[in-house]
Amino acid sequence: MTRAATRLPGGLFLSFEGGDGAGKSTQLTHLADWLEQEHGLEVVRTREPGGTDLGRTLRTLVLHGDDVDARTEALLYATDRAHHVATLVRPALERGAVVLTDRYLDSSLAYQAGGRELGMAELRDLQMWAVGGLLPAMTILLDLDPALLPQRLTGAPDRLERAGEEFHRRTRAAYLALAAEEPARWRVLDASRSVGELETEVRLAVAPLLGRVSPVVPA
Amino acid sequence: MTRAATRLPGGLFLSFEGGDGAGKSTQLTHLADWLEQEHGLEVVRTREPGGTDLGRTLRTLVLHGDDVDARTEALLYATDRAHHVATLVRPALERGAVVLTDRYLDSSLAYQAGGRELGMAELRDLQMWAVGGLLPAMTILLDLDPALLPQRLTGAPDRLERAGEEFHRRTRAAYLALAAEEPARWRVLDASRSVGELETEVRLAVAPLLGRVSPVVPA
Repeated sequence: MTRAATRLPGGLFLSFEGGDGAGKSTQLTHLADWLEQEHGLEVVRTREPGGTDLGRTLRTLVLHGDDVDARTEALLYATDRAHHVATLVRPALERGAVVLTDRYLDSSLAYQAGGRELGMAELRDLQMWAVGGLLPAMTILLDLDPALLPQRLTGAPDRLERAGEEFHRRTRAAYLALAAEEPARWRVLDASRSVGELETEVRLAVAPLLGRVSPVVPA
Repeated sequence: MTRAATRLPGGLFLSFEGGDGAGKSTQLTHLADWLEQEHGLEVVRTREPGGTDLGRTLRTLVLHGDDVDARTEALLYATDRAHHVATLVRPALERGAVVLTDRYLDSSLAYQAGGRELGMAELRDLQMWAVGGLLPAMTILLDLDPALLPQRLTGAPDRLERAGEEFHRRTRAAYLALAAEEPARWRVLDASRSVGELETEVRLAVAPLLGRVSPVVPA
């Protein structure tokens, strides 16, 4: 960066959620570029699982290792998340940065309570304990009909991706239920639209959190 | 094994606890040999962290990796434990075996609530959730004054061992407090005695759980 970054007191923590292939990493990158270039903010781009060195080891274990039972899987994600928050997210927020994360604790709730056998209340307690209660100021759900997924996925499928369309359908329903429970935190965006249209929607959603009205239409 | 093992309906789950150097692995081995050779039981010898393949990776992370914060550490142990119970301990108990583990969830409670900053209630909830509520029929605490530790330790010290005598002192106090809370589960044995004397005490403690009075004096 060529100039001192603008600081936001207490930082700004935003998460992207949605199924694989919905465009989270693309939108995160575009939003980060905009916040850096147009607003002079320090932006930390990260993801779960795997936002730290320890997390990358855990990510390998959980995505590509042997099948593990549901409790162990929930705990692997919670461990990654606790370390991610303690070593990367909180320090960045404390210095006034924007932290954009590709997935956060809602992923665990949507995938595990929605798609598998664990109860929502105990999962939420576990994940909230792991992060010491830290929630994003806004969570952007890129909502996509699972029927549109196969064309969008690229690269070798990981274990979660192989789990099938019914799994994705339950996960989507769980995401929408989470968003409905906490409408003040969530923004649900239709991810079937073009990248440019979505980009505008994301900027419109985030701009009010920056404390001023900003130009939000992509150049 | 040269003969079919005797089965105990529901198995028998025993844990050894205590500071490093108190003699847990020696006593576990002697007890296992006795149960196999004198009682014809199938004995599974295991430990935490690191009783499974996944656990061995986690053990490396937690004992020899970079320092992690207390929540992450608690979650790493809980993850190892959940996988250990799901894939090794429960299946062994279901087939009627004896499972002897060198450390179980009480280690997390004693080391983390006793030695560090997390609260006992939340730690206990976490660890109990990880194992689905499975507790040993008996937990044998090999209790040793930390002042006697340096002479007993062998090999390169790991991170916990380096944490110093004050840490060991708090951990010992936490173990004794846990034992006092649940006297029906715990047996506190003075680990400053000779290996042979301790071996006799361990057999005397375990024999009633085998459903009959057995010869308990070492040959």
